[in-house]
Amino acid sequence: MASKALVLLPFFILLVVSSAYPSRKKQYKPCKQLVLYFHDILYNGNNKENATSAIVAAPQGANLTILAGQFHFGNIAVFDDPITLDNNLHSKPVGRAQGMYLYDTKNTYTAWLGFSFVFNSSDYQGSINFVGADPLMNKTRDISVVGGTGDFFMHRGVATLMTDSFEGEVYFRLRVDIKFYECW
Amino acid sequence: MASKALVLLPFFILLVVSSAYPSRKKQYKPCKQLVLYFHDILYNGNNKENATSAIVAAPQGANLTILAGQFHFGNIAVFDDPITLDNNLHSKPVGRAQGMYLYDTKNTYTAWLGFSFVFNSSDYQGSINFVGADPLMNKTRDISVVGGTGDFFMHRGVATLMTDSFEGEVYFRLRVDIKFYECW
Amino acid sequence: MASKALVLLPFFILLVVSSAYPSRKKQYKPCKQLVLYFHDILYNGNNKENATSAIVAAPQGANLTILAGQFHFGNIAVFDDPITLDNNLHSKPVGRAQGMYLYDTKNTYTAWLGFSFVFNSSDYQGSINFVGADPLMNKTRDISVVGGTGDFFMHRGVATLMTDSFEGEVYFRLRVDIKFYECW
Repeated sequence: MASKALVLLPFFILLVVSSAYPSRKKQYKPCKQLVLYFHDILYNGNNKENATSAIVAAPQGANLTILAGQFHFGNIAVFDDPITLDNNLHSKPVGRAQGMYLYDTKNTYTAWLGFSFVFNSSDYQGSINFVGADPLMNKTRDISVVGGTGDFFMHRGVATLMTDSFEGEVYFRLRVDIKFYECW
Repeated sequence: MASKALVLLPFFILLVVSSAYPSRKKQYKPCKQLVLYFHDILYNGNNKENATSAIVAAPQGANLTILAGQFHFGNIAVFDDPITLDNNLHSKPVGRAQGMYLYDTKNTYTAWLGFSFVFNSSDYQGSINFVGADPLMNKTRDISVVGGTGDFFMHRGVATLMTDSFEGEVYFRLRVDIKFYECW
Repeated sequence: MASKALVLLPFFILLVVSSAYPSRKKQYKPCKQLVLYFHDILYNGNNKENATSAIVAAPQGANLTILAGQFHFGNIAVFDDPITLDNNLHSKPVGRAQGMYLYDTKNTYTAWLGFSFVFNSSDYQGSINFVGADPLMNKTRDISVVGGTGDFFMHRGVATLMTDSFEGEVYFRLRVDIKFYECW
């Protein structure tokens, strides 16, 4: 990023003089922004038709069907969740959130996410790829947008996750505020 | 990408006037391109010597050895596949494709991929890292090249996957057309 | 990266004339660099309190608790490991390394890594996301830094892993030398 650094240098020098570190981070404006929702219905042994995700791995001895152990350390879930434009599970999906999450803490709820948004509709074509840590108990969590294809060719950015709703351990809905800072 | 935006701005304004959205996407030329093949031989309980991959996770009750259930929702496979320059399984490997795929749809074949190409030969040194969704039934599928090391230091791009051949559920060969758009 | 290419072009032409390929790779200077350690204590059936990771997946028939089979092909481990500034397991953690590794070779030790460094301390705030292949038997292994959030907003780079210490199959310590080449 040699040229970028060059162009922005005078700007940053000024900035450092006039403001503290956190506000420097806020200078970047997204080149594109999307707000979407996705809906996860976990398989609990009795909802095969409606379920959009399933626990597929666990430490030895744990029951895969019902989430095992406090905080579910070691469980991996595979999912294929509908993406909607608003927070209504029954709205027409504009794409699918596909991939996995794994619970990775013994004494609280945290997850690690690797997944994609896959679009094939009049709204969007292509995919957005995400990787990152998700400390579930925080109101907002930031993960990385590491790439994209189609409409999102080569894009990078940061996605902010918010748990918009949940019902026990069977349903949860995430609001995803995707801010792209590299658009092509 | 402030400076890039600046430099390209006049070009894009012209473009928007003269052409529709899809053709705008085609303006980018790769800075480097590779076409490679990799070969996956799934463990089926009887091919321990030849197998290059194995199912290691599944929803409760599924049999890990033989792929379980229609479309294999929830199966995770770990693989270490030879990479060749042509489509011959018996050609001298130039590297290994290592990582995992997981089947993530209940009503069709789709996978999510996280893997690397690892090279240590006279052809190439280093690694290329991939993440993305793979809707298997499509003729071509695009995933993201999210980084690289060695000869592919810091590279980014898009890889197009094509199923070049398959034999039942034991062998499949993927053709990978890697287009780098950020070279260092 | 049109503008970067433009700016650097004369430099590279000169370089090609005066030096061989490997040294060209060394021209890049990190814009930021961190050296950190993380500590993995694998669950062996008897160390529930201290363990920071657990095997959660394996090919059919393998025992999840004690690592199964030579080289552990197909095992997936989920981890939540303390990060320290020095190589002492008992130093105050500055963050957590959270995610997974999977063993993916039949005839040697190699792993594939997907994980994050998560910081919430006076030292660092935010996260760094990693993806890559880890041929464990090599003295150093390079993986990709594919993104970051907070203090590491949009960062990219390469992380060099070194096995700093290990005790059987229960404890290992990795030294991670993170070099960022894109800072924001």
